[in-house]
Amino acid sequence: MAASIKDVAKEAGVSIATVSRVLNDVDVVNEETKKKVLDAIKKLGYRPNIVARSLKTQRTKTIGILIPDISSQFYPEIVRGTEDVANIYDYNIMLCNSDSDLEKEKEYLRVLKEKMVDGVLYMSSSLEPEILNLIKQLELTTVLVETKDPEDIFPSVTIDNRAAAYDAVRYLTEKGNKKVAYIGAYRDVVTAWAKRYLGYEEALKDSDLEVNENLTFFGELKAQTGYEGINKILEKEESIDSLFCASDEIAMGAINALRDKGIRVPEDVDVVGFNDIYAASIFYPKLTTVSQPMYDMGSVAMRMLIKLVNNKEVDHKQYVLPYNLIERDSCKK
Amino acid sequence: MAASIKDVAKEAGVSIATVSRVLNDVDVVNEETKKKVLDAIKKLGYRPNIVARSLKTQRTKTIGILIPDISSQFYPEIVRGTEDVANIYDYNIMLCNSDSDLEKEKEYLRVLKEKMVDGVLYMSSSLEPEILNLIKQLELTTVLVETKDPEDIFPSVTIDNRAAAYDAVRYLTEKGNKKVAYIGAYRDVVTAWAKRYLGYEEALKDSDLEVNENLTFFGELKAQTGYEGINKILEKEESIDSLFCASDEIAMGAINALRDKGIRVPEDVDVVGFNDIYAASIFYPKLTTVSQPMYDMGSVAMRMLIKLVNNKEVDHKQYVLPYNLIERDSCKK
Repeated sequence: MAASIKDVAKEAGVSIATVSRVLNDVDVVNEETKKKVLDAIKKLGYRPNIVARSLKTQRTKTIGILIPDISSQFYPEIVRGTEDVANIYDYNIMLCNSDSDLEKEKEYLRVLKEKMVDGVLYMSSSLEPEILNLIKQLELTTVLVETKDPEDIFPSVTIDNRAAAYDAVRYLTEKGNKKVAYIGAYRDVVTAWAKRYLGYEEALKDSDLEVNENLTFFGELKAQTGYEGINKILEKEESIDSLFCASDEIAMGAINALRDKGIRVPEDVDVVGFNDIYAASIFYPKLTTVSQPMYDMGSVAMRMLIKLVNNKEVDHKQYVLPYNLIERDSCKK
Repeated sequence: MAASIKDVAKEAGVSIATVSRVLNDVDVVNEETKKKVLDAIKKLGYRPNIVARSLKTQRTKTIGILIPDISSQFYPEIVRGTEDVANIYDYNIMLCNSDSDLEKEKEYLRVLKEKMVDGVLYMSSSLEPEILNLIKQLELTTVLVETKDPEDIFPSVTIDNRAAAYDAVRYLTEKGNKKVAYIGAYRDVVTAWAKRYLGYEEALKDSDLEVNENLTFFGELKAQTGYEGINKILEKEESIDSLFCASDEIAMGAINALRDKGIRVPEDVDVVGFNDIYAASIFYPKLTTVSQPMYDMGSVAMRMLIKLVNNKEVDHKQYVLPYNLIERDSCKK
């Protein structure tokens, strides 16, 4: 039989109310009494009923995490970063896969509110006004990851996707490449991913190269898109000398398509990917790619959120983390 | 201002106690009254305080999930399977990364008990008696995934790792291979992974081949182990004609090591991996591998757990799911 709060009160020689005050960290208990209570708790191995306490304190020490899909190559490391920090501060995470489906996101937000999570990390490459409004309406303390709201009302953790893509494409043009292809996410969706195309365009202009529609292909951020993309691009253009892809999956699919056509990477075509997922460094050839600090995005966001739910000040609310171009074997040296 | 239980009672023309009985699904409310209450709930958009209700019903509609590491290549898809099923039945998951650290596992189990989760999915390739005892002591309804207890006391979802490895190695020997190497997890740990070695030994014997220590290498289930393993094995033996690896990561590392030595896969060496992770079908050459039904392991386990926490019968408690040898391009046809 587990020890109850009554047993602790008896052992410490104080009232139940006093034990409760110690547990809830209300600062009206003198140090000596506090010590007695804590000793009794330790001796009896008492574990308070957190759920009952949650009702009183309106804190559950639980953070809701809304992500598109934990089984993608991108989110697991971010989630790991969040949970490691949560664990340090005695928080737990409630994980919700939204599939970027608006109705599912809304339902999860409502459920998280009902379950009285202390805060929410919202991860997505996009952000619908409806979601922002619901978060406001439910008064959920929220940090955005990978995306931000247009007015910077919500705290966020992102990287500069446009600048990262710009750097990657400049890296290709500075090697003397003239026909730089691009395979990425659909342009009509305004997302973190779509911004990568803007960086591509800008880099071409700054390299005195024209943007040639025939050299671009848009689809999902998947290997299949890369494979298809190469085939479509090479139907329209005789050759390319380099390729920037908005994800590593696309880059790997594209390299497989090039290989099937007898075109060598990097001898014939330089390829740069994006994200630095696990497979990037195992793939042959090892991918040169823009590394997103996925673990850090999760841990920085969680640290900020825990500060916010505890009404502590945060240095700045819009964190833009550094990215990094990792040179491996898919570009000529 | 959100509607309260009082507002619902007023709207429906019943007492608060009646609304509460409807919410908690106690069967003493007549259908007509129940309908009135449900209509009022709908009309007012009332959402009950789940935390307060949890204390009363002793149910939180939350399941704790203990895994070694969400950022590995293996667990995300299992977790996705669990969450999809949880979502169907209005459960949420609380995700805990244990790093297979015994102390961390114990602490998480205690926290999950305190947070009154309805049940726990425990995932690990191993299982310490201490963990089993703690689960019993805390009276946590638990389903084991990927592992099982020696006495089959706990329900579990696994695959037959020994048989799967046996089949993979027989596949190699039936192609006429005589020098089948093995790179896998340390043998001294009794885990799901170590069983794969037993399948290897057995298959060699049944193929009238001798087990040659020089052809084996043990380490972690990582690409690095595969890379090192090939180098060590080829220091001792002049050549191998095939290789079975206890993980796809190992297989990919090994293939990279073979490539660096100018040895071709599959022309010179047939390679079979294990798990069928995402990268396996993108890698060059595409990996022939034993596919574990990761998503299904998660969804079957969650379905069983939800039945158990609702005191419903389950057909059988020890689920052994089918595996599948996927033939791709890392073995000769």
